[in-house]
Amino acid sequence: MPRMAQTGFHGVFPYVVSPLYPSGEVNAPVLARLCGDLIKAGVHGLTPLGSTGEFAYLNWQQRRRLVEVVLEAANGRVPVVAGVASTTIVDAVFQARELERLGCSGILAILEAYFPVTDEGVFAYFKAIAEAVSLPVVLYTNPNFQRSDLSLPVIERLSRIPNVKYIKDASFNTGRLLSIINRVQGRMQVFAASSHIPACVMLIGGVGWMGGPACIAPRQSVELYELCRKGDWVAAMERQRPLWALNQAFAKYNLAACIKGGLELQGYEVGPPLAPQEPLTAESVEEVRRALQAIGAL
Amino acid sequence: MPRMAQTGFHGVFPYVVSPLYPSGEVNAPVLARLCGDLIKAGVHGLTPLGSTGEFAYLNWQQRRRLVEVVLEAANGRVPVVAGVASTTIVDAVFQARELERLGCSGILAILEAYFPVTDEGVFAYFKAIAEAVSLPVVLYTNPNFQRSDLSLPVIERLSRIPNVKYIKDASFNTGRLLSIINRVQGRMQVFAASSHIPACVMLIGGVGWMGGPACIAPRQSVELYELCRKGDWVAAMERQRPLWALNQAFAKYNLAACIKGGLELQGYEVGPPLAPQEPLTAESVEEVRRALQAIGAL
Amino acid sequence: MPRMAQTGFHGVFPYVVSPLYPSGEVNAPVLARLCGDLIKAGVHGLTPLGSTGEFAYLNWQQRRRLVEVVLEAANGRVPVVAGVASTTIVDAVFQARELERLGCSGILAILEAYFPVTDEGVFAYFKAIAEAVSLPVVLYTNPNFQRSDLSLPVIERLSRIPNVKYIKDASFNTGRLLSIINRVQGRMQVFAASSHIPACVMLIGGVGWMGGPACIAPRQSVELYELCRKGDWVAAMERQRPLWALNQAFAKYNLAACIKGGLELQGYEVGPPLAPQEPLTAESVEEVRRALQAIGAL
Amino acid sequence: MPRMAQTGFHGVFPYVVSPLYPSGEVNAPVLARLCGDLIKAGVHGLTPLGSTGEFAYLNWQQRRRLVEVVLEAANGRVPVVAGVASTTIVDAVFQARELERLGCSGILAILEAYFPVTDEGVFAYFKAIAEAVSLPVVLYTNPNFQRSDLSLPVIERLSRIPNVKYIKDASFNTGRLLSIINRVQGRMQVFAASSHIPACVMLIGGVGWMGGPACIAPRQSVELYELCRKGDWVAAMERQRPLWALNQAFAKYNLAACIKGGLELQGYEVGPPLAPQEPLTAESVEEVRRALQAIGAL
Repeated sequence: MPRMAQTGFHGVFPYVVSPLYPSGEVNAPVLARLCGDLIKAGVHGLTPLGSTGEFAYLNWQQRRRLVEVVLEAANGRVPVVAGVASTTIVDAVFQARELERLGCSGILAILEAYFPVTDEGVFAYFKAIAEAVSLPVVLYTNPNFQRSDLSLPVIERLSRIPNVKYIKDASFNTGRLLSIINRVQGRMQVFAASSHIPACVMLIGGVGWMGGPACIAPRQSVELYELCRKGDWVAAMERQRPLWALNQAFAKYNLAACIKGGLELQGYEVGPPLAPQEPLTAESVEEVRRALQAIGAL
Repeated sequence: MPRMAQTGFHGVFPYVVSPLYPSGEVNAPVLARLCGDLIKAGVHGLTPLGSTGEFAYLNWQQRRRLVEVVLEAANGRVPVVAGVASTTIVDAVFQARELERLGCSGILAILEAYFPVTDEGVFAYFKAIAEAVSLPVVLYTNPNFQRSDLSLPVIERLSRIPNVKYIKDASFNTGRLLSIINRVQGRMQVFAASSHIPACVMLIGGVGWMGGPACIAPRQSVELYELCRKGDWVAAMERQRPLWALNQAFAKYNLAACIKGGLELQGYEVGPPLAPQEPLTAESVEEVRRALQAIGAL
Repeated sequence: MPRMAQTGFHGVFPYVVSPLYPSGEVNAPVLARLCGDLIKAGVHGLTPLGSTGEFAYLNWQQRRRLVEVVLEAANGRVPVVAGVASTTIVDAVFQARELERLGCSGILAILEAYFPVTDEGVFAYFKAIAEAVSLPVVLYTNPNFQRSDLSLPVIERLSRIPNVKYIKDASFNTGRLLSIINRVQGRMQVFAASSHIPACVMLIGGVGWMGGPACIAPRQSVELYELCRKGDWVAAMERQRPLWALNQAFAKYNLAACIKGGLELQGYEVGPPLAPQEPLTAESVEEVRRALQAIGAL
Repeated sequence: MPRMAQTGFHGVFPYVVSPLYPSGEVNAPVLARLCGDLIKAGVHGLTPLGSTGEFAYLNWQQRRRLVEVVLEAANGRVPVVAGVASTTIVDAVFQARELERLGCSGILAILEAYFPVTDEGVFAYFKAIAEAVSLPVVLYTNPNFQRSDLSLPVIERLSRIPNVKYIKDASFNTGRLLSIINRVQGRMQVFAASSHIPACVMLIGGVGWMGGPACIAPRQSVELYELCRKGDWVAAMERQRPLWALNQAFAKYNLAACIKGGLELQGYEVGPPLAPQEPLTAESVEEVRRALQAIGAL
């Protein structure tokens, strides 16, 4: 396995949660403290407005403010790759330009849909975002929660757009990632998601992972990443197994509720997910507590 | 079958399309003319911001303006039941209150979701909308295009809220409608959708239908409704069969593209659906043309 | 709606259950008594080896014996349309020929599959069955429980084979039945299934229904059918509503377990479904008891 | 990662295809030659009557004869783990006992279903097979092609039955395999399937893989296995990548058609899959040819 050059995005990018006051305003102090602590724990970048960041539940004013706070907290120490998500090209292009203007290092591009979208429509959407900015773009696809998916032929076509440089696939199908890697021949790099085993994705040539669990286990995630980078797979698997148990504990519940609940246990007052999403029950809080304790994250 | 009292919403409610200028502004003259013609054709109400109205692709400013234009065009001649759609309770309540303030006669309440929603969350969402307004509320569910669905127990619970008076179910499962009717015992009335055969839903006790196709075949839809109301089922089925063929022609394509394409053929310059939705191809325009001609709607 | 000529199969065809002794041998006395009683209740035909007949759980020796007993009990009073079900053409053709030789009046043709089947493969399978016998063939499709489905183009092609005269579609999509009726233009007649509201299917032009519930409510089913035939839809719906409640009670459980459980309550010792299918629990027996009492079938 | 003891089943178990004469009789000479060549290529076991072995399309006489031929060809050099597949417990127990009597080394236990099966039913089925024989049992689950699946709690319960020692999961969800490994704590070993990347499953603690592609690339598969066993992951991934491309070529078509088509190209006259499965088209034969040439298997 050729080691990828570490010049682009790589490593652990936590999906930063979105702490709001009951009024709907962004809780900037908590968010800033969380971002600072994540960076101190060694994460390689920050991703606001991913799925765990509840992009689908926030209006544009909230989204922009969240990104501003993350950018200010990061203060250039790590890249900030923020989410763009819309059902229309015109709105997605607007969001992407604004995020570039704010100072983001990259765009995580998410297509929302109500009616099914054709391959041509999917291609047009991501192409428009890429052409609207000069930043690197990370394609995002999550067939579990979305009404659209990125087919292999569309991914290949998109990989030929110069600044479409990464893809994050949140399916459960790890083989699909190797198919993508085989197909794009280095034009695009692959990030794992919470639904994949990071060590496996690193083994097949991935460059890191983006996801919610890294928010509450940043140090453990970075250690796992470094072991994979070194090719010390025996030690990597020793770290991977308990981290996966944490993921499994979360897979049963609303992901935003889990990560926010876990952060509350760690002393970050991030509040509950936006209603009608429900916060964790007392029982599931205990399950998250045990999972965090098992990996030394509490 | 006992005849329902015609005191509440009943009959044919076209899902009014959303004509925009390329700038994104609402094309008020075209929309007003369409609404006027629909009312002259005898429709019993107008529903802006349904699925065919592309609610999922419009921002709040566009949504509000569309409703204003429809209200002004209707001018009290028929009820206007406008769509509220959001992923959060706080935003849905805001929309519902604004629509009441604008003068709508009812709310079509739609739950959007990214992460799965529990039954408690679904109940909380619709309850909050109902309690925010004094208008009658129509529950909407479309398991084909949405990440959430309304279970029978939740529907029954919601039917006990005084102003939750209707449900429109856009599944393909007509039997589910009879199960709902059996279960809510008159506390809630049922509207059919494009995915059901209207004559069948009228037979089992429905009060009408809401949908996109009524936009381009309003006169034929109203005739079908009147025959069903009179219990002249033989004549009703003679109208139903060719109308269903029209529905079938549309089921192959994006519904907004079809209705907008059909309206363009009828001389309404409503434009294409919002990108990345694609307009009809030349070939499918011809298919829609033939389907409209077959029912005398062109 | 033109009344169909009643020269072919029409009316209520119960899916006869398969009562076995613990040894696996067919319980002929119970089966014969059930068939005799169904005929006395007025059913228009008998269908052994439908889904409720557990065809998928029986070997060929059991299947053949079941058909022999049903044929002997019917003794020519009503047509017997028996199920053929296989994954291979060669086996299906064998079964169909044997059933014709035994004296069946028609074939209910079912395609089982492990790997997905192409439209060409689906067409070849049903065509081979039709050409192997001189009996009328009823196509069967159940997308809920099967790995294959019959597309509209394949149904249209099959409708041009002279003895492919009927289709029974066990999806939940009643609109699909009207699409089929529109498309085959009288070359093929449509039977409803337990998943459709029989009165609705009769309204749109169906000729009857085949299903498990008719086994435990034969008299009520026949009355409903006759009211539909007469076009007395108000009275038909009065019968339809409580019968649908019965269907709904069954939809929650394994269908064979429900019908067998209901027949046990009615005094037919048909035994449990084949393991690992589970018999009804004590609680669900009570639910079935109440549903049967509500329609006067107990 | 602790190296598993190599005392049980491990390594590469090709899913042996089922070559039949047009009459339906087993083509013993071709099957015996294939088995001999696979063993010479180093495979660690042989699995007749897996999915690629078309178990779902064969009657018991054919299944028994196929196993007899494989056993005779293996002649004790490698373990033969044959498939048991049924919808009923009674039939599955019969098959398992017969396979033990014939001399198989293990059972690959497959549950077929028409109606959904409860967790209790799934447990009862596999338990009955395990208790009917003294052989080690491999649980098989394939949610893509089957109407049933093995939940994690059922897998855990089954892992406590002494001779239930392995599981082969043919989902696309590699993370599920790690969840199983975490949960069964060594009581059960995991085999990968064609839908997983073998190197990844070996990394997380798997003991090998069973699947169709190993039939046409046995030497390459064994080399990959040995590299994984040694922990030489860089070299393993060099082998893995082109082998995965082969898998991908197959994923587009009927798997039995692909493997049989590939074996025909390699000079084994195994014939087409059973109709209505369709053989490869001329075009897809060329695609398989190129995929085999790319890995040196032609």
